[in-house]
Amino acid sequence: MKTLSSVKCFEGQQLQLQHESAALSCTMQFSVYLPPAAVAGKKVPVVYWLSGLTCTDQNFTTKAGAQRIAADLGIALVMPDTSPRGPQVPVDPDNSWDFGLGAGFYVNATQAPWKTHYQMERYVVDELPELVEAEFPLQPRRAICGHSMGGHGALTIALNHPNRYASVSAFSPIVAPSQCPWGRKALGHYLGESRESWLRYDTVALIRAGARQLPMLVDQGTADSFLAEQLKTDLLITACAEMGYKAQINYRDGYDHSYYFIASFIENHLKFHARHL
Amino acid sequence: MKTLSSVKCFEGQQLQLQHESAALSCTMQFSVYLPPAAVAGKKVPVVYWLSGLTCTDQNFTTKAGAQRIAADLGIALVMPDTSPRGPQVPVDPDNSWDFGLGAGFYVNATQAPWKTHYQMERYVVDELPELVEAEFPLQPRRAICGHSMGGHGALTIALNHPNRYASVSAFSPIVAPSQCPWGRKALGHYLGESRESWLRYDTVALIRAGARQLPMLVDQGTADSFLAEQLKTDLLITACAEMGYKAQINYRDGYDHSYYFIASFIENHLKFHARHL
Repeated sequence: MKTLSSVKCFEGQQLQLQHESAALSCTMQFSVYLPPAAVAGKKVPVVYWLSGLTCTDQNFTTKAGAQRIAADLGIALVMPDTSPRGPQVPVDPDNSWDFGLGAGFYVNATQAPWKTHYQMERYVVDELPELVEAEFPLQPRRAICGHSMGGHGALTIALNHPNRYASVSAFSPIVAPSQCPWGRKALGHYLGESRESWLRYDTVALIRAGARQLPMLVDQGTADSFLAEQLKTDLLITACAEMGYKAQINYRDGYDHSYYFIASFIENHLKFHARHL
Repeated sequence: MKTLSSVKCFEGQQLQLQHESAALSCTMQFSVYLPPAAVAGKKVPVVYWLSGLTCTDQNFTTKAGAQRIAADLGIALVMPDTSPRGPQVPVDPDNSWDFGLGAGFYVNATQAPWKTHYQMERYVVDELPELVEAEFPLQPRRAICGHSMGGHGALTIALNHPNRYASVSAFSPIVAPSQCPWGRKALGHYLGESRESWLRYDTVALIRAGARQLPMLVDQGTADSFLAEQLKTDLLITACAEMGYKAQINYRDGYDHSYYFIASFIENHLKFHARHL
């Protein structure tokens, strides 16, 4: 593992790192924020952040204002990239921004040519925690959070691995990829056209299949231009209500899909996780 | 004036705007944050933010986390660009990043070909406040703050126009452009080689010439790679001490020149201004 940069931030340390990923068969970059307590050597719990389409490890790191809160709460932040990267990684032949590079959808692909590199679920759930917990003063206490495609990633990963996460939260998540254009395109390519294989990567389907209860928080802006066609928050509200799944799902009046929305509510999310970590 | 974007942020409104600048003879973009009190129609005071080399109105707007604090304090933020822009604006023939586009140094240029467009002092001091105070619910109560080249801009503008600003602050400012490579290059081009004309754009020279006392706060990271050659904070400390100018100048151990530094201390700066506004 190589340190690309290390910068002091709110008395803690903001790092960008690079390593060879076995799960993804490529060189990956990611970012870590260590709060002052961890810089002083104390083991702290971790919140993983999964970003959305087109993002890297840098969007949340530079724009969300999360370090201030993480410093106060004594929580580390780990921000992976959103897909495998590099010249050997296959890309969408149409060069679209909603599939392929920057759009790994946090699944383990089963279809050629994607399956060699697009193993983002394994990377986020196993390889990255093992790496950072060995390298930094981190407790094996984890929460997971994300935005849009990363909100989908956080929810499905937490529901599929409830023993590994104390809590889960999402901003503007794609809650039912089987039922929206972004999701159908990505899951169709990564997993093939058999919809049965999509269900474990579909939050609404997982809730309806009886997923185990985890502390869950979701925020969704009402002025989000992707809400009606791609995000479909109401499907999650209905599924939770019908299955008795106790999630806290908030519509936020007038907020859009941007990092200005995330910045406005990230304090609520990190405090929510801190209560469960 | 045209609204390019309007996004809800911490219950206030983050705007990006475009207008035809008479002072700069070109189309300019700038950003404004209106706190919830202003969105509700109440007139609020304003902090102007001047960015550094290579920046636009977007760097501080997206990375500093200032909106949260401005919302709490009931202060508007106005972020101008760092130079005139557009196809008619002359650029450095060497295409460097420390002079010309993105590097207006907040001076009124007197030399051809720069003087037609590079009138950033007039723009920041007169044209922009007139525009935003007419358009938005803003009191004519102003403070000014900036980073690096923009720290130089904030300090020189406040010292030259003490009636227009209640207070001034800077992160990592160029305090003596006459005595550093960035400053000598820019002032030499914009103002000509007569060093007499540079003195009103040199904070240390202005303090030594007996500038009127204003509440002044400066933060400087000790791990800033530009400190020794370009920023030279000690020259300001010495000038203030010798002239009895009461400025609060802090070295911050281990912090660098980045927005992670600004984000870590912007709350102190905005609260400092709020006490004087």
